[in-house]
Formats: sequence, structure tokens, C-alpha cells
Amino acid sequence: MNFSIIRYIIGMLLKTESVLLLLPTTVSLIYHEKYGVYYLGVAAFCALLGFLLNIKKPKSNVFYLKEGCVATALSWITLSFFGALPFRLSGEIPSFVDALFETVSGFTTTGASILNDVEALSHTALFWRSFTHWIGGMGVLVFILAILPMTGASDMNLMKAESPGPSVGKLVPKIKQTARILYIIYFGMTILEMVLLICGRMPVFHSICLSFGTAGTGGFGILNSSVGSYSAYCQWTITIFMILFGVNFNFYYYLLYRQVKKALTMEEVKHYLCVILAATVIICINVADRFGSIFTAIRHSAFQVGSIITTTGYSTVDFDMWPSLSKGVLVLLMFIGACAGSTGGGIKVSRIMIMIKSMFIELTTYIHPKSVKKLKMDGKSVDSDTIRSVHVYFTTFMIIFTASIFAVSFEGHDLVTNFTAIAATINNIGPGLNLVGPARNFSFWSKPSKFVMIFDMLAGRLELFPMLIIFHPTVIKGFFASLGSPKKAEQ
Amino acid sequence: MNFSIIRYIIGMLLKTESVLLLLPTTVSLIYHEKYGVYYLGVAAFCALLGFLLNIKKPKSNVFYLKEGCVATALSWITLSFFGALPFRLSGEIPSFVDALFETVSGFTTTGASILNDVEALSHTALFWRSFTHWIGGMGVLVFILAILPMTGASDMNLMKAESPGPSVGKLVPKIKQTARILYIIYFGMTILEMVLLICGRMPVFHSICLSFGTAGTGGFGILNSSVGSYSAYCQWTITIFMILFGVNFNFYYYLLYRQVKKALTMEEVKHYLCVILAATVIICINVADRFGSIFTAIRHSAFQVGSIITTTGYSTVDFDMWPSLSKGVLVLLMFIGACAGSTGGGIKVSRIMIMIKSMFIELTTYIHPKSVKKLKMDGKSVDSDTIRSVHVYFTTFMIIFTASIFAVSFEGHDLVTNFTAIAATINNIGPGLNLVGPARNFSFWSKPSKFVMIFDMLAGRLELFPMLIIFHPTVIKGFFASLGSPKKAEQ
Repeated sequence: MNFSIIRYIIGMLLKTESVLLLLPTTVSLIYHEKYGVYYLGVAAFCALLGFLLNIKKPKSNVFYLKEGCVATALSWITLSFFGALPFRLSGEIPSFVDALFETVSGFTTTGASILNDVEALSHTALFWRSFTHWIGGMGVLVFILAILPMTGASDMNLMKAESPGPSVGKLVPKIKQTARILYIIYFGMTILEMVLLICGRMPVFHSICLSFGTAGTGGFGILNSSVGSYSAYCQWTITIFMILFGVNFNFYYYLLYRQVKKALTMEEVKHYLCVILAATVIICINVADRFGSIFTAIRHSAFQVGSIITTTGYSTVDFDMWPSLSKGVLVLLMFIGACAGSTGGGIKVSRIMIMIKSMFIELTTYIHPKSVKKLKMDGKSVDSDTIRSVHVYFTTFMIIFTASIFAVSFEGHDLVTNFTAIAATINNIGPGLNLVGPARNFSFWSKPSKFVMIFDMLAGRLELFPMLIIFHPTVIKGFFASLGSPKKAEQ
Repeated sequence: MNFSIIRYIIGMLLKTESVLLLLPTTVSLIYHEKYGVYYLGVAAFCALLGFLLNIKKPKSNVFYLKEGCVATALSWITLSFFGALPFRLSGEIPSFVDALFETVSGFTTTGASILNDVEALSHTALFWRSFTHWIGGMGVLVFILAILPMTGASDMNLMKAESPGPSVGKLVPKIKQTARILYIIYFGMTILEMVLLICGRMPVFHSICLSFGTAGTGGFGILNSSVGSYSAYCQWTITIFMILFGVNFNFYYYLLYRQVKKALTMEEVKHYLCVILAATVIICINVADRFGSIFTAIRHSAFQVGSIITTTGYSTVDFDMWPSLSKGVLVLLMFIGACAGSTGGGIKVSRIMIMIKSMFIELTTYIHPKSVKKLKMDGKSVDSDTIRSVHVYFTTFMIIFTASIFAVSFEGHDLVTNFTAIAATINNIGPGLNLVGPARNFSFWSKPSKFVMIFDMLAGRLELFPMLIIFHPTVIKGFFASLGSPKKAEQ
């Protein structure tokens, strides 16, 4: 394994993080908060460490999927570790495990918090929390790909390991260009949301933070009531943008390049919108009598559905108090998740579609054993390797999911709490039900359980395998060998 | 599709059922109960109908997997329909849907009941309920294969559709002989359990019924307290036999034919026993303080674990009152289920093993893309088609499971009730948690929800696809075409 390239990537990542940390430092200057010094200190340390790791250039720029996966997993762990330091150093989050949980929750765009009182935080910390969502949403390595001159043709493996969904489509032949286009769309839509929220008289700071949270489908709020106390206009704006950020970004690419027909035939987007519509209607009818008017009921139903299916995790009401049908639908949406190639998490609509279609094809082979009906998406047949990987993904997902529930069960909380806490973290949503409902938080879990959830959040965000691979004996052996004799390990 | 052979098989099945119905009739004579007349009446009707369906011999004896699946699904529906009639006619279960639920629950070896007071039933009804478990456990079509002179080489397709597990191994070259050996083992073990229970001073009638329930991994009891009020000796006997009936029957075949080494290398059996041991230890430690002595705690833990993993569903205590860790472990066991080729339900240990192994192999291909590591079971490599079918099975299972929970959610019961009610029916267990806990029953569900669960019980018992195939447009069209012009439909 080529550990020198991994070291080099992590070095670049640390330098990037040091630049990113200057933003909360600036915020602290604007609001005259003393905490900025910790962010600046960590930034300086990251810069130094990154510089040290980058002194020696890697001998070979070529790296394969395994290097891509290991680099991605280690990058995200490093990113979270250093991102958590300012919270701990400033004392705003006294326990380091809690700070790490909060930061991982931020970068993985989960939005599950261990804070009892969000409003007690400084502007600096609030900004950094929300900003981690925005960084994590599109993926920090994609960002590095987009702006830095780096490796050659093989950096697809880096993007593949970090991007959500069953297959990464190169929009344009050059991967660097793809990454840039994605970031431009992402940036543009975030700015648009900010402007629209400011037009709705939301304070500028809130608009910025909430837009970051929406864009990354994160879910960290500024107020304890999440989005509940903003105006109906702001809630609708956020609803629409949450749903927009859950759409496969290829859709916007097609629109941008006037390939409207291609955009409109995207099956995944159509089904995603249909699920949102159906879920909103069911929940709206189910909860209508709890609200003064049908319009309020529609607004809250659409908001909660948009928030959960895109795995954002904002809330306008405490949906844990809703009837069980509505809660059941929301739990279902947690697993479906957003579109592949969006910033959202979950299993992804396209994977669910491939699974349902492969069920029907299996049925057909029972009836016509000689038929060779192909599974099709958007009119093109899906190769058997992708189908296989979707099934293995789902199986692996369920294995990790079940094992995690088992691990946190030892704390003795009720079944719904355990089930939805793991569902909310592995699918990168944020709130669950009962003890982890939208009006509560994750602070009561023990340290071991928090580590399980930290693992789940990272596994969910990085599509499982990168996080599993770093525990593979070959990788661990290779790592220690590289410490001893770098040449041997590279073979 | 060859509907004439399906008609012929159903005819034979009805004749078989009419013979089986003579047993409860005999019980009614022994106990001087008036209800026997209804069982006799239905038996006569079944015989007549079977005779009519069998007048015309099918032109061709050859049938493929699709005919095997359709025949199996329709046979089990027919079997349950006529099996439910005596309950309804005698008035012991006033609603036909309830009677059908109870009978399907019996034949599919689920053991979920709609009865508030089991002890109010006549001996005749109690016997018939338990006897349906015994018939359903090994499979009625396997029974027909074993005793009747019938089709040629292609009856493997019938057995394949009815037998639990990812692949049916022919123990001996002739399928008829395989079926006979299986039934001999099944019969012998049932008798052995009866004798051991009678030795433990259990009333003979109870011993017979409970042995039927254990052998079929069913779970219908004779008393409202299930197995709670029998002696510790009887509870241990039942625990051991439940676990024995959850073992792959090939194991006993190997022992019977002195292939001890082959028996002892069966990976699935080893893992099945390890899971039972681990679960018992965890639960025992978790509930130890609730019982007077550690021995009582071990007994109840082992009983509940054995009952749930083999999907029997008997209980000695109300495990719904246990702490959530124990309940969580039991819910996990519900899905794991027993060994393939046993009478138990659930996903099956071998499927879970194949899924976990394929996850590790996927990880390896990330690291060594060129490696062609094969998935192995019992030292032999598993072909890719079996692996694929296991994944598709699991996906289909989860789709039906989720859709069913959604369907019953409209009643507004709590999430744990909905989740475990469906888990308990699709995995053919019986009791779930909360409103469907071991101390309660399924009577409160509405008719539509009961139909969902009837479908799930049948789908779970017949390994999903046979129950889905009968709704396939080709099959439905073919069926109506066969009514019009039989020749055309057969093409």
C-alpha cells in the first residue's frame, strides 16, 4: 500500500483545515469574542503539521481504490479530531469525547448534538458548527481536488470513496473540472438561500449558519427550538432548499448546460419527489387536527418530511409527539434518504430503486427462467457488478446497524431510543425518537456508546467501506510496516 | 404454465387434508366432544373436492420452478382455508378471518393466536391447532412426495419451493427417498419428546400437543400461561427439543448414516449453537436479579432464547417485562432464525453467514482488486448464483417487512407493537413485544391488518417468492386463460 501518498493527502488536508479555521477566527473578531484565539492556535498547529507531512513528496502519485478509501477515512478522522480541539480548548464543550462527537456530527452532516443549550454557545462556536456541515456536505477531498494541483488520472478513486451513492458519474472527462462544477453549483445555491432568508428578515448570522446547515443537509440549529421560531416564509424557504440539496447534483449540471431533457428523465429525482409528496400527504392528514389551519399542517408536514428524507434533521415541531403512523413514516424516510450524488445521507433513493427492481427481475426469472431481462435506470441497463455492490452495501449497512444497536443496548434505554439513535447517526440525520427526539439531545449516552455513534456517523457518510477497511489486518500491518521501512510497505 | 398439474397437486393435497382431519375427529370421540362432526364434515367435503380435481390426469407430469412455486402457494392457501372451516363452523372461533389467521398461524408454524382464552377451547380444537404445526413444520407437499406415487424427476421444484433455506440439498439421489428419511427423523424425534414429557408427569394430551408444537417450531400452547406452569424438567426438555428441531436436518441424516465427521463440520450448526449460548449468557446476566436462583434464571433465559431463535414462540415468563437489553437480543434472534433445512423460520443462520462472509470478501476486493477469493461454507465454495439469491432474498424480505409495517401503522398502535408484530409473523415466531407480547394476543388488530399478517406468515414460511409469484400478471393471466381454454394456457 502506498502510504506516502496518504500521508501527503492528509498533509494537504491539514493545510486546508487551517485555512478553514480562519473563518471562525474572523467571526470571533467581528463579535469581539475571546474564543477566536483557540481557533487561530489550532489553525497554526494544523498548518505546521500539514507543512511537515508535505515536506517529502510521495514517490508515486498513482493510487488505487484501497489508498482512496484509507486516505478518505483517515482524512475525515483527522479533520474531526482537529476540528474538535477548539471546542475543548475554549471550554465551551468540556469533554473531548463530546467535542469530537459534535464535530463528527458536523462534518458528516448528521446534526446530532450533545449540547443541552445551543443558545449558550458563542457566535464563533455556532459558526464553526454550521460551517463543518457545509464543508462535509460536498466533501472536503472533493474540495481539495477542485482547488489544488495534484495527482493524475487516478484521483477518481478518492472521489469515489467520498461521494455518496452507488456510482460516481464523471460529468466531464476531467475529474478536476467535475469537482469544480459541483462546488460552483453548491456555492451558488447556498448564497441564494442566504439571500432569500435575509429577505425574510432573518438575522444575517442566522441566515448564514442555517444555509450552511441546509446545504450540507446537516441540521445544527442556532436556537434550541431549531427552526420552530422563524417565520412561515423562512420555514418554507428552508423546506424547499432542503429538498433541492437532496436532489442528485447531476440534475443541476444538466440544467446548467441546457440538457433539460436529460435532467427531466432522471428516474431517481422523480421517485424522490414522489416519495416526498406521498409522505407529506399522509402525515398532513394524520396530524391535521393538531394545528389551527390546514396550511400550518401542510407547512409542518412538508418541513419534517423534507428534513428527514434529506437527512438534514432540522425541526419546526417536536415530531416525537406526533401519532405513531407519522412517526413510522418518518422512520421509513430516515432509511430511504436522499438522492445519490446529493449532499444527503441514508441508503439513497437510487439504491432502493435498484433493490426493488432486482426483486421484480428475480420474480420474472422464476416465471421465465431463460429470460435475460436487464435492470434499467434512466433507460440504460445497470451492470451486474453495480447491482451486486448495492446488495452487498445494503447487507453491510444492516450488519453495522444491527451490531451498533446491540452495542448501545447495554445502556438499558428503551428499544425505540436505541433503534432511532443508531438510525439517526448512521443515516446522518440528527434527531431520532423518544430520548433522542428533536426536543432532546445525545448528551446522556455513555462514552462507549458515543464512540459507536461516531463510528456510525463516519461510516454512514463515507458509504461504509472506507471506515471498515482501516480495520483490515492488511491495512494495519501495512501501516506499521510503513513506519518501520517505508519502501517495503509500498510494495 | 401447466395449470393441470397444479390442479392435480391441489386435488391430492385436499385428499391428504381430509385424512388428516380424521385425527381431530378421533380426538373428539375420545373426549366425547360434539365438535368432531364439523371436522368430519369438512374432511368429507375435502375428499369429494379432491376426488373431482383428480378425475382428469394431467397430460404432462413435467413442471418447472414456476409451477412448483404456484402449486406450493396455492396449496398452502387451500390447506389453510379448509383447515379454518371447522373452527368457524363449530363456533369456537366466531369470525372466519380470525379462524383463518389461527389456521395460517398453525400451518406456517407461527403460533400467533387471536384467542383471548386458549383454555376455553375443546380438546378437538386444541389438538387440531397443534397438529397443524406438526404438518406445517416439515411441509405438507414434502409429505405428499414422501408417501404418494407421483411425478418424475422434476418434483425437486416442489420441494425447493417449500423447504426453508438458501439451497435444498438432495441427501440421496432420489428425492422421494430424501423426503421419506426426513419424515422418519421428524416422526422419531417427535415421539421421543412425547415420551420424555410423559415421563415428566405431563398429561398425555398436553405432551402430544406440545410435542407437535415443538417439532414444527410452532408455539400454540394448551394453557394461557404457555409453558410457564409446567415443571422445570418439562421446560428443560422442551428447551432442548426446540433447539434440536432448529438444527439442519442434514445433521441428523449424517448421524443416522454414521457420517459423524461430516455432521460435526457443519458450520451452520456450530454458529447456531454459539449464538444460542451467547444470547443465553447475556440475557441470563441481565435478568439474574429477577429470579430467586441462578438456575431459574438460566432455565428461563435458555427457554426464551431457544424458543425465539428457533421461531417456536413458547414462553415460560412474560419476557415483555424484561429489561430492554434482553428484549433487544430477543428481537435480534427473531430475525436470525434457525438453521436452513430445519422446521424453523426467520432469515436462517446460513443466510446470515453468507451475508457476513460476502461483506468480508467485498472488503478484501477493495484491498486486493485482483483477488478471486471464493465464499466458502463447510469447506466448499458457494457459487455466485446462491450468493446473489441470498442477497435478493434479504432485500425482498426487508421490502415486504417494511411495507407490512407501513400497512399496519394506519391503526395507530405504537412503533414497537407494529415492528414486532410483523417481525413475529413474517419470521413465523408468534409473540412479539408490547401489545403483542407473550401475555397478549393478536385479536385486537383490524381485518385488513390480519390479512397483511396472514400474507406475511405464508410469505415467511414459503421463503417469500412463491407468495409473490401468484400476484404476477403472467400467472394471473395464465390462470384465467386456463379456465377458458386449458390447452392455450399450458403452452
